Amino acid sequence: MNRRTFIAATWITTAAGTRALSAESAQTGSLVKRNAVVLFQGDSITDAGRGRPDAAEANQQKALGNGYAWLAASQLLVDRPGDNLKFYNRGVSGHKVPQLAARSQKDCLDLKRDVLSILIGVNDIWHRINGKFDGTPASYERDCLALMDQTLKALPDVKLMICEPFLLRCGAVKDSWLPDFDAYRAASRKVAETFKATFVPFQTMFDEAPKLEPPDHWASDGVHPSASGASLMAHTWLKTVG
Amino acid sequence: MNRRTFIAATWITTAAGTRALSAESAQTGSLVKRNAVVLFQGDSITDAGRGRPDAAEANQQKALGNGYAWLAASQLLVDRPGDNLKFYNRGVSGHKVPQLAARSQKDCLDLKRDVLSILIGVNDIWHRINGKFDGTPASYERDCLALMDQTLKALPDVKLMICEPFLLRCGAVKDSWLPDFDAYRAASRKVAETFKATFVPFQTMFDEAPKLEPPDHWASDGVHPSASGASLMAHTWLKTVG
Repeated sequence: MNRRTFIAATWITTAAGTRALSAESAQTGSLVKRNAVVLFQGDSITDAGRGRPDAAEANQQKALGNGYAWLAASQLLVDRPGDNLKFYNRGVSGHKVPQLAARSQKDCLDLKRDVLSILIGVNDIWHRINGKFDGTPASYERDCLALMDQTLKALPDVKLMICEPFLLRCGAVKDSWLPDFDAYRAASRKVAETFKATFVPFQTMFDEAPKLEPPDHWASDGVHPSASGASLMAHTWLKTVG
Repeated sequence: MNRRTFIAATWITTAAGTRALSAESAQTGSLVKRNAVVLFQGDSITDAGRGRPDAAEANQQKALGNGYAWLAASQLLVDRPGDNLKFYNRGVSGHKVPQLAARSQKDCLDLKRDVLSILIGVNDIWHRINGKFDGTPASYERDCLALMDQTLKALPDVKLMICEPFLLRCGAVKDSWLPDFDAYRAASRKVAETFKATFVPFQTMFDEAPKLEPPDHWASDGVHPSASGASLMAHTWLKTVG
């Protein structure tokens, strides 16, 4: 066998292996069905440096950023290469619920995605504490409920995932954030329950992680995940999706 | 409620959340049972900068390194906090099968772990190609079979995981590696089948990943995974474990 033949044989083996991997993992029980289009929505944690000129490109790292959205998407795409999945990201750094609502028509409803995963809330408390925003836990809950209601009226078949806002107790995060933050967490859970959305328990996960390594291993400023933190988030997101 | 009481209440909520997460995920079908002790063994990809003075410490990032071993271990520990799992790493940069065999008594058999996950092979081909090692695919297979036979005779109840050696087609990896490499891959699969070990298809995974982003996104030198590459490996390892 000459080298050209040998390389061709390698590719055939590879393709067969890929098919086997696909058949194994395309679980019908997953929230992400065959041919699904998935939209990640949120703030800087979701944004994670994504490139705006590439936003219309599905499944590209530069369009999905360097965070949990890219890691989760790429892992599912590798698991299920034959399932024609498409992932997009519309997270925008610094955004809070009112800003998400203001761009909902363009960045969510018009896109008509099958699965919508939303992680929003840490700026709502951060900017409130530093005096740049006058929202409260009550307005967070009210605005989230209104946004989800509007979303589900426009997209009644969308699979909605509400991700729990989270913080690590280090960096910018002070003890003074905590009582309010607990109310934001509770509100996000209530929103998920109200609309029978799938809840992704990121804070439960980030309460457990510091028993292994200190909070700043997972997010040095307490808010933006490290590579380990983003990998952990992708894992929990995928586990929740099934 | 004063602030101290509020913080205490937060911790109680957290503990309840953690218990719920644990109950969900402590699947009896997992290869890693309650109270299991897991050993990662291999070369630099497993080593990933682990600290030698900390090697006796279970579940510590500095003892587990910055690679897939730490990501996989930490994700499982966060999922199953009540399951008393312990993870150790004995990967050593640059090692090939003969060196793994030479330190097997001290670094594996004496430790009596419940689950043993081995990833070895890329140096066996790399050092052969650069003329520093006279091993062949045949000697790789023979030495792996002998090592696994010795391991299972000493530890008949160990759950054995054989990880497929892999490469990305970039960096140090040249086309001239490929025909031989395919034989190393086939040998690792044969070793897994011979001993009914669990096979972790890392090359199948890394054949799929470059359809999303170029090979150097996953491992800039073709051998040592990036953060995205290591996260993908941890995901596939955990999916294989169940």
